[in-house]
Amino acid sequence: MSRADRVVALLDERELDCLLVTNLVNVRYLTGFTGTNGACVITPDERLFLTDSRYVEQAKQQVTEFEHLEASRELLGDLAARLRGRAGFDDAHVSVKAHAALAEKVPDGVELAAAAGLVEGLRAVKDEAELAAIRAAAALADGAYEQLRDTGLVGRTEREVARSIVRHLEDRGADEVSFPPIVAAGAHGALPHASPRDVEIPSGVLVVVDLGARLDGYCSDCTRTFATGPLEDRASEGYEVVRRAQEAALGEVRAGAVAREVDAMAHELVESGFGTGFDHGLGHGVGLEVHEGPRLARTAEGSLETGNVVTVEPGLYVPGDFGIRIEDLVAVTADGREVLTGFPKELVTVDG
Amino acid sequence: MSRADRVVALLDERELDCLLVTNLVNVRYLTGFTGTNGACVITPDERLFLTDSRYVEQAKQQVTEFEHLEASRELLGDLAARLRGRAGFDDAHVSVKAHAALAEKVPDGVELAAAAGLVEGLRAVKDEAELAAIRAAAALADGAYEQLRDTGLVGRTEREVARSIVRHLEDRGADEVSFPPIVAAGAHGALPHASPRDVEIPSGVLVVVDLGARLDGYCSDCTRTFATGPLEDRASEGYEVVRRAQEAALGEVRAGAVAREVDAMAHELVESGFGTGFDHGLGHGVGLEVHEGPRLARTAEGSLETGNVVTVEPGLYVPGDFGIRIEDLVAVTADGREVLTGFPKELVTVDG
Repeated sequence: MSRADRVVALLDERELDCLLVTNLVNVRYLTGFTGTNGACVITPDERLFLTDSRYVEQAKQQVTEFEHLEASRELLGDLAARLRGRAGFDDAHVSVKAHAALAEKVPDGVELAAAAGLVEGLRAVKDEAELAAIRAAAALADGAYEQLRDTGLVGRTEREVARSIVRHLEDRGADEVSFPPIVAAGAHGALPHASPRDVEIPSGVLVVVDLGARLDGYCSDCTRTFATGPLEDRASEGYEVVRRAQEAALGEVRAGAVAREVDAMAHELVESGFGTGFDHGLGHGVGLEVHEGPRLARTAEGSLETGNVVTVEPGLYVPGDFGIRIEDLVAVTADGREVLTGFPKELVTVDG
Repeated sequence: MSRADRVVALLDERELDCLLVTNLVNVRYLTGFTGTNGACVITPDERLFLTDSRYVEQAKQQVTEFEHLEASRELLGDLAARLRGRAGFDDAHVSVKAHAALAEKVPDGVELAAAAGLVEGLRAVKDEAELAAIRAAAALADGAYEQLRDTGLVGRTEREVARSIVRHLEDRGADEVSFPPIVAAGAHGALPHASPRDVEIPSGVLVVVDLGARLDGYCSDCTRTFATGPLEDRASEGYEVVRRAQEAALGEVRAGAVAREVDAMAHELVESGFGTGFDHGLGHGVGLEVHEGPRLARTAEGSLETGNVVTVEPGLYVPGDFGIRIEDLVAVTADGREVLTGFPKELVTVDG
């Protein structure tokens, strides 16, 4: 069943006559189109793809299962004319202004209905080709950690290390990084979203390194925390607490596992082990976007299913002192799980 | 007058009691905050900045002229409670879903009013500090072209050249590139938004190179078209047509110039000189975003004013054969203009 067919199967469930897809990630997922201006309309009988003159040639190559329509650059007017009945649109991405313009242009009798998340729900379950792309992107991430282990961290600035990661991944074939790498030494690591600084990494601290590659459009995401020499006891203890929590939570990833329970378990293990917790979710789905469904978090709904690809990334942040995070990327399989990231999780000391 | 004060001056004009600012670029412009989750509310008597726990410390450093409020990560509930009367929101960026959630949470008597473009209008006029940042970012772009001239293009792949540009700019101090560079040789240059390919650049063709750096948040944007050896006559002629059109249009940039007239002039010069035109606007504003106001285009409204920074970038695209684009970045000054990009526009041949 094609992805568009799977959309059609959901139209009925949501009492929709058609779905308008404007979010470019969803357009790519459904049609294969990678340009920066395109949209599609899916009805039970019709698969329509629209782009402007700049992308007509590219679309001919990439979009094989849809009827093509060359539209003006705004797309909206041409799209509106093709909608019928109760038309789903992506209310999480369409702006109030675009919606108003669309509502003005639809034919009489068309009702625009909020349908955010429909395609995202499909995207959360990966097929074999998608898994292969993510697996390869995860292998690139492993290579970046191996290179860091070999080249060392002490005396280099966080920013220089971050740039070397980008270059390494690109040189090994990544389309790009899936997000700007985080390299955060010592107390700076206590900020979960730290930006790399022009500050030299000293000996004897923990360094959080969070990175990912994009390959054929698909992302990887991995975090390791290195030591740059002998650590104070609290830091070593914290590392072991996070590592055990990470491995325990990873072991709970399987089809049917309740997302918020896996999250809660990791939080409890870190809190009971160290006395303080971490103020972010345990994990998130990864695919065409580095953050997508399903989530492993306190407010997450539902359970994991075969084909999900999620991160498992507990952390520990001691303001003014140090930060720790260990993150694997894992696919839910029919008989358990496949961990896609392979770099060791025992504390690796790079003192060079 | 602070930027927030300038917002207040516009509230009255738009019959608004307050403005809710959620677009992060506008938040940065008004408050100085560079994190990834923040918002502000501006009333005649109040400047309120909200972020979540992750960014409280950073905000204390960056946001000096606003009252601070720590909010939950969604921000929306805490924001809604602070709105009063007729509350402007950014309908071009707020999604239908976020708007619905906001509307549910605002106090009785609050009316949400579409106010897209209010802050963008202020951003279109740069102050001295902003001009200095853009000038420095433009100088970085010049340096990238000088390096290309020195290192050559023939035999390198488009992708490798694009990456070397990114590295050069980063090594010279850019925060990042302001967009992924375009490097498009021969017929590939006929696509205005070409992606760099794994294809070696041959001798005797034109190569369109479009690049920019971001420095202290501000962007530059410049295009030059190189030759890699002797060209066929039509390509040489085309280059001179575009160069003359570019210089003529650049000479029209001044306070009071009607945006669509400057655009029309460049289009006419290319069409009359070569017989075919180019299917994009002549230029766009550049600042915290690489595409912002004002536009120089067929559908643009209004005139240029002192403090605007715009690109002037006519092109010529012959499908299957070659493409040409020449783009400068120019600031409108009290007594004319200051061209911020300095690399030569005479045809430069790099045959190495």
